[in-house]
Amino acid sequence: MLKLSFQPYDLRLNRVFRISRGARDRAPLVLTRISFEGVHGYGEGSMPPLYGESAESAAKFLSAVDLSRFADPFDTESILQYVDGIAPGNAAAKTSVDMALHDLIGKLLGMPVHRYFGLAAAQHYTSMTIGLDTPEKMAERAAELSEFRYLKIKLGTKDDRAMIEAIRSVTQQPFFVDANQGWKNKEEALDLVHWLKEEGTVFIEQPMPREDVTGNAWLTERSPLPTIGDEAVQRLSDIKTASSTYHGINIKLMKCTGLREGYKMAVTAKALGMKVMLGCMTETSCAISAAAQLGALADWVDLDGHLDTANNPYEGVELSNGKLVLPDTPGIGLTKENNKLFLP
Amino acid sequence: MLKLSFQPYDLRLNRVFRISRGARDRAPLVLTRISFEGVHGYGEGSMPPLYGESAESAAKFLSAVDLSRFADPFDTESILQYVDGIAPGNAAAKTSVDMALHDLIGKLLGMPVHRYFGLAAAQHYTSMTIGLDTPEKMAERAAELSEFRYLKIKLGTKDDRAMIEAIRSVTQQPFFVDANQGWKNKEEALDLVHWLKEEGTVFIEQPMPREDVTGNAWLTERSPLPTIGDEAVQRLSDIKTASSTYHGINIKLMKCTGLREGYKMAVTAKALGMKVMLGCMTETSCAISAAAQLGALADWVDLDGHLDTANNPYEGVELSNGKLVLPDTPGIGLTKENNKLFLP
Repeated sequence: MLKLSFQPYDLRLNRVFRISRGARDRAPLVLTRISFEGVHGYGEGSMPPLYGESAESAAKFLSAVDLSRFADPFDTESILQYVDGIAPGNAAAKTSVDMALHDLIGKLLGMPVHRYFGLAAAQHYTSMTIGLDTPEKMAERAAELSEFRYLKIKLGTKDDRAMIEAIRSVTQQPFFVDANQGWKNKEEALDLVHWLKEEGTVFIEQPMPREDVTGNAWLTERSPLPTIGDEAVQRLSDIKTASSTYHGINIKLMKCTGLREGYKMAVTAKALGMKVMLGCMTETSCAISAAAQLGALADWVDLDGHLDTANNPYEGVELSNGKLVLPDTPGIGLTKENNKLFLP
Repeated sequence: MLKLSFQPYDLRLNRVFRISRGARDRAPLVLTRISFEGVHGYGEGSMPPLYGESAESAAKFLSAVDLSRFADPFDTESILQYVDGIAPGNAAAKTSVDMALHDLIGKLLGMPVHRYFGLAAAQHYTSMTIGLDTPEKMAERAAELSEFRYLKIKLGTKDDRAMIEAIRSVTQQPFFVDANQGWKNKEEALDLVHWLKEEGTVFIEQPMPREDVTGNAWLTERSPLPTIGDEAVQRLSDIKTASSTYHGINIKLMKCTGLREGYKMAVTAKALGMKVMLGCMTETSCAISAAAQLGALADWVDLDGHLDTANNPYEGVELSNGKLVLPDTPGIGLTKENNKLFLP
């Protein structure tokens, strides 16, 4: 019989993080554990304000999850369909269940989750994100991040060019650009994309508002750089529309209800000839390690959400010369668990 | 270290089987075995003439497969990408490797393959196929098949209406229609589909030639019944085009290189809102049992290729009151293996 436990957790950031929609210095998490025959699987939900979840909504959702009706953790689709059907939304809370279940499955099999999915253990260079700030402060931050192969620059403001110019004055690292829906005019966006290409940009994430399907499709058709849908692509069912709107998708476990659906999204996107990026929210090493298990399916990886946190209670995937290296431990890849966070 | 063995096998039919492209009374197979640490996984390729494979081409292909370079059967994607890359085509030969590998994986884990994929053990009513013949002979055959919930009627001739009328004079069972590309005029096809709906047809498989994308799309847009692409949809990369040409796809392991790609095709089709049918060639209980492992992903199942064979060397999935029932054995579901077919 499967047993779910959960605890809220307040993950603190070492620095204030700003994007075009707001700023914050902490992230509300829910940490989960599924126990089965003495084996514990760990999971995590991170609830950014954009998607309408909170510590309270996650606790309410998880209180309604009764896993005692399932006797077999390998009956994964049945379990996850049940969880998904309890209420709409609540993607991060659902993810926290999926993640703990896959950690449990891996531990029961004695293999890392990537191997359970038939995937190789990919080692990707992750990008490291620089949040919005003054151009000077962003350049200062860039200068500190020379160990990373790629930077990821948050744009979507009136000062986009000044920010890039300031960063380019201190480093020539290639970067990913994330406009977070901040560009409103498609012709101006296209001009900027041409300029950003010359400055060494690899791709453009969510250039215009997610609702503007025709604007994003117009830009994608003309863009000299790949466009990646993020806010516009949350779950598997969003890919059909996205396939004519963007060149690729950003899969984040916290948007898509977890590893199982994330795997399916990557498979579907690749079948449609789209690029696949793995992204994250502000998360502990638990969720970041889980996402890294799908690395073999990704063209690009932006799994840095644990790197600038003050009270990460887990250890797992390691950063080595800018590359994410998964340990060979069974499950999602934790090397330090934290069972004492949960009531007995 | 993985070791592949293979043997040609001549599977004989109890009756001559005719479709709109030809007739035959036997099927050339290749039977495979992958051995690893004393455990044997079994697979099968069935090579229908349409797709250009033969016993000779399969033997040539499999002779080039060197699995000794792989130490881990769970490194599935790497193994299958290597096999797929050896030569283009050869889908059934590739399937015979994928199937043996998944049988091995299931046996190593001690679980049926559906459980490894996280799927429930579906019990589907399979259709039973009636090949082309005179209307009278087709009706005679239909009268013998009352145990089946669905018949599958091969059409695509000038006598389509007479065949259906003859069958309807002996039974009211609903049926699937498979035109096997036999309809050449889209307006006539649409008229026939309207008539077939009134006669109790569930869906129409491959109405017009696979090359006629616009004709099939025209028909699909207007058809009162679901259309299913078969000859037009062989592998994962064909689904993108098929999604605007048909309402659904017929996944056959022998077309798509096996269980792994078949699983991905089902996931992709469902993500695009398409129907999924599982089909087969003339096959032993080995390949039919393997296909039935993916039953939970299917809307309809036509897995009857083993039912009318004279020298099926395996036992696995059973027919019970018209339903396919998988045994709970590890792997693809064999209950009688045939290790002695292979040289030591």
